[in-house]
Amino acid sequence: FVNGKVCKDPMLVTANDFFYDGLDKPGNTSNPLGSKGTQVYVMQILGLNTLGISLAHIDFAPGGQNRPHTHPRGTEILTVVEGTLYVGFVTSNPENHLICKTLKKGDVFVFPEGLIHFQQNVGYGNSVAIAGLSSQNPGVITIANAVFGANPPISDDVLAKTFQIVNNRLINSRPASGWIITKY
Amino acid sequence: FVNGKVCKDPMLVTANDFFYDGLDKPGNTSNPLGSKGTQVYVMQILGLNTLGISLAHIDFAPGGQNRPHTHPRGTEILTVVEGTLYVGFVTSNPENHLICKTLKKGDVFVFPEGLIHFQQNVGYGNSVAIAGLSSQNPGVITIANAVFGANPPISDDVLAKTFQIVNNRLINSRPASGWIITKY
Amino acid sequence: FVNGKVCKDPMLVTANDFFYDGLDKPGNTSNPLGSKGTQVYVMQILGLNTLGISLAHIDFAPGGQNRPHTHPRGTEILTVVEGTLYVGFVTSNPENHLICKTLKKGDVFVFPEGLIHFQQNVGYGNSVAIAGLSSQNPGVITIANAVFGANPPISDDVLAKTFQIVNNRLINSRPASGWIITKY
Amino acid sequence: FVNGKVCKDPMLVTANDFFYDGLDKPGNTSNPLGSKGTQVYVMQILGLNTLGISLAHIDFAPGGQNRPHTHPRGTEILTVVEGTLYVGFVTSNPENHLICKTLKKGDVFVFPEGLIHFQQNVGYGNSVAIAGLSSQNPGVITIANAVFGANPPISDDVLAKTFQIVNNRLINSRPASGWIITKY
Amino acid sequence: FVNGKVCKDPMLVTANDFFYDGLDKPGNTSNPLGSKGTQVYVMQILGLNTLGISLAHIDFAPGGQNRPHTHPRGTEILTVVEGTLYVGFVTSNPENHLICKTLKKGDVFVFPEGLIHFQQNVGYGNSVAIAGLSSQNPGVITIANAVFGANPPISDDVLAKTFQIVNNRLINSRPASGWIITKY
Amino acid sequence: FVNGKVCKDPMLVTANDFFYDGLDKPGNTSNPLGSKGTQVYVMQILGLNTLGISLAHIDFAPGGQNRPHTHPRGTEILTVVEGTLYVGFVTSNPENHLICKTLKKGDVFVFPEGLIHFQQNVGYGNSVAIAGLSSQNPGVITIANAVFGANPPISDDVLAKTFQIVNNRLINSRPASGWIITKY
Repeated sequence: FVNGKVCKDPMLVTANDFFYDGLDKPGNTSNPLGSKGTQVYVMQILGLNTLGISLAHIDFAPGGQNRPHTHPRGTEILTVVEGTLYVGFVTSNPENHLICKTLKKGDVFVFPEGLIHFQQNVGYGNSVAIAGLSSQNPGVITIANAVFGANPPISDDVLAKTFQIVNNRLINSRPASGWIITKY
Repeated sequence: FVNGKVCKDPMLVTANDFFYDGLDKPGNTSNPLGSKGTQVYVMQILGLNTLGISLAHIDFAPGGQNRPHTHPRGTEILTVVEGTLYVGFVTSNPENHLICKTLKKGDVFVFPEGLIHFQQNVGYGNSVAIAGLSSQNPGVITIANAVFGANPPISDDVLAKTFQIVNNRLINSRPASGWIITKY
Repeated sequence: FVNGKVCKDPMLVTANDFFYDGLDKPGNTSNPLGSKGTQVYVMQILGLNTLGISLAHIDFAPGGQNRPHTHPRGTEILTVVEGTLYVGFVTSNPENHLICKTLKKGDVFVFPEGLIHFQQNVGYGNSVAIAGLSSQNPGVITIANAVFGANPPISDDVLAKTFQIVNNRLINSRPASGWIITKY
Repeated sequence: FVNGKVCKDPMLVTANDFFYDGLDKPGNTSNPLGSKGTQVYVMQILGLNTLGISLAHIDFAPGGQNRPHTHPRGTEILTVVEGTLYVGFVTSNPENHLICKTLKKGDVFVFPEGLIHFQQNVGYGNSVAIAGLSSQNPGVITIANAVFGANPPISDDVLAKTFQIVNNRLINSRPASGWIITKY
Repeated sequence: FVNGKVCKDPMLVTANDFFYDGLDKPGNTSNPLGSKGTQVYVMQILGLNTLGISLAHIDFAPGGQNRPHTHPRGTEILTVVEGTLYVGFVTSNPENHLICKTLKKGDVFVFPEGLIHFQQNVGYGNSVAIAGLSSQNPGVITIANAVFGANPPISDDVLAKTFQIVNNRLINSRPASGWIITKY
Repeated sequence: FVNGKVCKDPMLVTANDFFYDGLDKPGNTSNPLGSKGTQVYVMQILGLNTLGISLAHIDFAPGGQNRPHTHPRGTEILTVVEGTLYVGFVTSNPENHLICKTLKKGDVFVFPEGLIHFQQNVGYGNSVAIAGLSSQNPGVITIANAVFGANPPISDDVLAKTFQIVNNRLINSRPASGWIITKY
């Protein structure tokens, strides 16, 4: 066992310890988000153990989105293999700059470690992206789920302060964003 | 220059290259959040360069909150030196477990690298915490600001999908959370 | 400067610092090897600096080969996006096991750091692969070029011993391989 | 098991895996040194495993001293939360510069990895310090104990040469120090 | 267990856990290569586990050669303790520069991580070298064995392309090298 | 510049950037300690930059000693190439076990990162050792010099507590050691 994974005797490893198949099958994007990610991490390929890299494949229906998320332990480098994606990441405090770009087939973009980023299919057809990640187990944190859908939920009290809500009604402090978050 | 910082000749370093003062002055918590963090990173102490650690001090007014945020490049270990803090972090997908605890003076808690976490003063008086971070420049991403206050803003289109908003009105998919996010 | 590369002020970075285009244009495989690799390393995307990852795209004409090579500073995880590739790597001494597999579209394979590996198009049409590498500058060493084509050349004396050549004629010591290397 | 520590199933972790309490109870400084350190390493908080950071709390009676010591695997960043400390570290060969400073409440100081350092309470009352360390298990080596109190002891022969002792009597070679070490 | 090796209780370690003997016995160089390497890796000294270093000792008969090889996980720093060695390494693509030097007793040379390198005894008597390597398990890949002696063998088809062989006969593309590789 | 060292254009590097000579010249051991270390660090071979390894050569006159010292940033693996050395290291708190061994020619011993260790020539003639270290700049801290010979000196007040001295006279707390340290 190394890193909690079985570490095979080098004499006994076979090609299958370094192999994963099925990325050619389109992910099921029939969901409210219109996207589906498939991860090839150390849980999928045991031979990745200690090697510090992994792969992901993302399918997008038209309009589909890979919602704002972070990889707590990895940088992502993504290339579009089909379609058109609008992608972006937001830099850390205090600037919170949105660095974004519309990518067409063959374009490559980098999402630095731990930063909030997203991809959205802005083309007419499906889009497909492939990404490398700088960890064998980079993790994924979908912001909306972690903030509004934690289990058990984050307390109303904390969320109210989080979004500076008064009387159950928030007008976000930066007028430009113009979002209201309320408790029902 | 090492890591973009001046690297002094070892013959010329003085105690001030390893020194920072003023953490005893309470941070100004007269703001909507009722909290104020002070960071002692490599920007504040040049001698931290290459050494992989930093310190932070956080003051909380009663009810004050250090809103959900991540450190993209560091784990945090925090101890309460005054008051009572309710703290928590949310694990990554797919569980999104909230791991939380109320801490009194002398308690210690760990927020693993890159995970969304928060602290809230739930005592009657002020609270003070001191935290070590596992990077000389761990960074801070305040989720609310990065998502709703990026500059330029993340597009309405992306945010609508982010929070699964229909007709400018979101009922978050996990009923337990019960928050509505709308565009005004 | 960090790692000998310009490190931009975070206030001044733009999307182009994290962007590279053109991977959709098929690499020119009209060469004796019938393959062409395109690397997206830190030299191509400055924003990869310090982030420990890069990407490569490889085009193969029918029969084309990405000859045995190593990446001295990185593991590779490859996926086939078009065609059929026969791939393999050889483990280190003393076993020198060949771990190989024929990959079809959608298959993924790992080539651990520093090991000699190759890919060959064994399908009827063109093949295309995309690979992530666990370094911003993994390097490439083509074995045949480094051994027989170094500049200046490795001396005849060394190469003779390398391949156990007697009277300018080698019969490699493992009969199964059956290759003769001679000096002309 | 990871690093020889149990690594819990992420589904089963609880807040207590990231928690330690009791740092508010003053350490017992009724000892010849007048100081007491409390370490919060991976042995105290299992959740620190793989995360590269730990915490320490040090109490000082008036005049109390945290004797010259090193952390073989970590840098320390310390802040004074009560009282006044005279602190210092000595740079490596050949300079052996003493870099020292008197710290009051709220001051922060860095002791780089592996260097010999100390803290002494030079105020009238008790002092308290909190420190972050850049390893989950940085280790502590108290110089006096490791040199004069090893088990079994370092041989007289070695120690005599160590301190350049002649006829069981040393006059240290730098007159300014003026210490005599003898065997009784 | 740490890294797949037993990790002893610190209370139970003995000097033998950090000890290896026998490097003074000349390695048996009565083989076609006239050289013999002895490795002191974590497999030989368990106490090296997690410590990132190892040692090697190489004996050379007159004319003996340590054939072109790589260490996939380590840099080597070598010193000649007896005799005269002609040593070199080849830089990565696209330059493939041969960086070489004749070393006499007392000389030191560095072979950067993952690069192909060799040593040859060019003196009249035996030569002996000692080398440090930057990994507890750097690995060794002998190029000739891995390319021509893999088990099972790399296919003729791949090797033919590797060395650009036509009609079972290769004239290497860089005329300066002048080697012919043929299948018999 | 990388790590504060010039980083040459790969096209311009020569063998001399990876070379150092003179380790065959016996170090001058005509000093009170009867030993002389020669370090081959990144300051001596610029090509070691970023490569994480270095070499040292130590000469010992009969009875000569490499006094108790630490390498703050590296593990050492040492082999005896001539003579007989008594070597040891002391484990960290709370055990402070002395792990020691008498080494003859051809023996190898490991001194883990940051631990206090020493070597003494216990043979009749000269001894010579060669050591690899797991950093390009591991540093050396000679305990006696750093404690008693710092510049400026560590204050008498601190040293008195360090060695638990009363009335300018210490009887070390572990009777077995039997050393007295006094101020003159």
